[in-house]
Amino acid sequence: MAENEKVQEHQPEWAHVAWAHLSAVRQRSPLVQCITNFVSMDLMANTLLAAGASPAMVHSLQEIPDFTPRTDALCINIGTLTADWMPAMKAAARTAVESGRPWVLDPVAAGASTFRLEACRELVGMRPTVIRGNGSEIIALSTASVGSSKGVDSSHESIDALQAAKSLAQASSCIVAVSGAVDLITDGQRVVGAQNGVPMMQKITATGCSVTALIAAFVAIDPLHAFEATASALSIFSIAGEVGMDMAKGPASLRMHLIDSLYGLDEAAIVHGVNIISLL
Amino acid sequence: MAENEKVQEHQPEWAHVAWAHLSAVRQRSPLVQCITNFVSMDLMANTLLAAGASPAMVHSLQEIPDFTPRTDALCINIGTLTADWMPAMKAAARTAVESGRPWVLDPVAAGASTFRLEACRELVGMRPTVIRGNGSEIIALSTASVGSSKGVDSSHESIDALQAAKSLAQASSCIVAVSGAVDLITDGQRVVGAQNGVPMMQKITATGCSVTALIAAFVAIDPLHAFEATASALSIFSIAGEVGMDMAKGPASLRMHLIDSLYGLDEAAIVHGVNIISLL
Amino acid sequence: MAENEKVQEHQPEWAHVAWAHLSAVRQRSPLVQCITNFVSMDLMANTLLAAGASPAMVHSLQEIPDFTPRTDALCINIGTLTADWMPAMKAAARTAVESGRPWVLDPVAAGASTFRLEACRELVGMRPTVIRGNGSEIIALSTASVGSSKGVDSSHESIDALQAAKSLAQASSCIVAVSGAVDLITDGQRVVGAQNGVPMMQKITATGCSVTALIAAFVAIDPLHAFEATASALSIFSIAGEVGMDMAKGPASLRMHLIDSLYGLDEAAIVHGVNIISLL
Repeated sequence: MAENEKVQEHQPEWAHVAWAHLSAVRQRSPLVQCITNFVSMDLMANTLLAAGASPAMVHSLQEIPDFTPRTDALCINIGTLTADWMPAMKAAARTAVESGRPWVLDPVAAGASTFRLEACRELVGMRPTVIRGNGSEIIALSTASVGSSKGVDSSHESIDALQAAKSLAQASSCIVAVSGAVDLITDGQRVVGAQNGVPMMQKITATGCSVTALIAAFVAIDPLHAFEATASALSIFSIAGEVGMDMAKGPASLRMHLIDSLYGLDEAAIVHGVNIISLL
Repeated sequence: MAENEKVQEHQPEWAHVAWAHLSAVRQRSPLVQCITNFVSMDLMANTLLAAGASPAMVHSLQEIPDFTPRTDALCINIGTLTADWMPAMKAAARTAVESGRPWVLDPVAAGASTFRLEACRELVGMRPTVIRGNGSEIIALSTASVGSSKGVDSSHESIDALQAAKSLAQASSCIVAVSGAVDLITDGQRVVGAQNGVPMMQKITATGCSVTALIAAFVAIDPLHAFEATASALSIFSIAGEVGMDMAKGPASLRMHLIDSLYGLDEAAIVHGVNIISLL
Repeated sequence: MAENEKVQEHQPEWAHVAWAHLSAVRQRSPLVQCITNFVSMDLMANTLLAAGASPAMVHSLQEIPDFTPRTDALCINIGTLTADWMPAMKAAARTAVESGRPWVLDPVAAGASTFRLEACRELVGMRPTVIRGNGSEIIALSTASVGSSKGVDSSHESIDALQAAKSLAQASSCIVAVSGAVDLITDGQRVVGAQNGVPMMQKITATGCSVTALIAAFVAIDPLHAFEATASALSIFSIAGEVGMDMAKGPASLRMHLIDSLYGLDEAAIVHGVNIISLL
């Protein structure tokens, strides 16, 4: 990445942007409705709580008309999708858009089956504010192809998905984030890379799902700057992983220290840690 | 609370009551059937195991006639309720009552939607032994009003819900517990406050759900004294949190130390820690 | 067990067999589809990741035709079974067999209800490669009787289930493993005992479920030697528990150290730790 000719200088203002977002989440405690998979519910709720947000794992079709308009953001994740979940996901997305609430989509294993890809594409058509996936997922979504991923783990580096991400962002008028060794964030024109995190985070289930929910919390407090909010959330979650890694002895202790660190991050850690650079 | 004129002296016998309950749970290992939300299943089962009880996450309608009469208590929690879960919840509650088994209701986010409130009220009508919620939930249930809570987190102190709790206990002939900085327990006449716990427990998802299951285990071994069993369970779970807090560096390590501490609590820790007082 | 006349000498070659299996899982990262209960999804996925496998919690009926043939093994667990999960479980089992993929069954609480027992027996008829349960579950399956277990916890020692296990293995032409203080593994003729593990593992929910998934990962990389793969997986998971116990202060920290240890186990720990003996 450092060799990439298009890389610009490290931009210190990103650290202040990121810190401002985390501070606002802690202060305002946005209510984030999560319609997510069974595997991630626990870690996702704990991630939001540790960041200062208020999670609500609410997914019944009947209460969406009452509940979704009172939330600050919505997170939809198709990890353990079955067909009976789709009506609530679609109703919540529609209600969020109608209520002016941002919503974030996590297209887990989008390319693993036709069923999954079609569900994702239907949701992508419902105007998400942000889509976050790994390289294989974003390529599957952008090219509408099945079979590009091995289960839920990516078989592509994030940089392989850059063009797919830009195309998807342009076609869907949303922010697209691609997780990987370097997280890429694009609005279809601008591209930034967040170079934080540690490889062992890939060995903890639901870290990807959880950072998507964190993006929702960050976008909730700054919906007009979803690009900046998304990059900030990705960077901060990864910094929590870096800080946690100093104490970890394996993936389970890293999971614990990651959440503890997210809860405790202070301005110095953010200013020191944020490593977001502009790519052309 | 200390200023409240109605507060009576600290009553040391509560420590012995609490310790006797925990000892009996460890010795008899009551089988507690849990019909609960997806977020809490893991922590709830681990809480019951750490306390010495035997959890059974069994919720299929078909096996309730076989299974529920053989359990020692039932815990029903509506956290991630959808309409298709209601028949099993109602059948289990009915079977528990018919079999003379105590059952405990956790009305999560009762005021967050009409759907949720109506489900709760239907369950409240099925003669729970104990209802445990936060201030907003108990107020919503008692006044049958939607909109009093922000998601699953309470926007009321427990003391704000005292009258609502007493009314609900009288109307439903059950014990009502209100969690908060001070946990309140009432049978409609008597009121005690359990002043244990640490604020960071609010930053761990499913701690409220888990203490409701612990109440079920305690009531299982002393169904004729559900008031005492409820206060004991709330106090002991909070003491485990206090002990855990001495080692915790954030909410995720507190979660771990809380369960470890619950497993290891000895008589001295209980006698030293229990802080239950009578309120008028 | 040491007094058992039929016990043969400790066989050091098992340590090399076990290490070879773990090394192969780490190198090849088999994709393991898990159709499992809600309680275990998180720990099961983290167990597979820590061992080097790639978990996929995929259970929708619609995507099984696409997805299951591309996996390396399938794990089916009926812990929180409801009737609507059966079609996907059966379709996945059928697809796995047709695709030549091994699959492993965890008959959680098989004897707790008629509903559960019948579901298990239907799945047993679909040619699982391995069945792993506790003593009460294997007895319930082998004798087709309800009521032999108290919830999900076993009321039998594994050795009590030895004849039931051999009968079940013969009748179903599969490997049967019985977890307990000594884990027993049989193909209907041969029997080995894996004498690893610590009692506190019983105080962590979903450890049994998780080792079943680990068996699936091990069998995935050596499907022609499912007997050896099963014994190796059980032994290695238990060794991770033994190593973790040295650092644990209770069941929650043991859970963390167990996963960390599984991730970090090296050849010396395996060679030193594996304690598998042949029983007649």
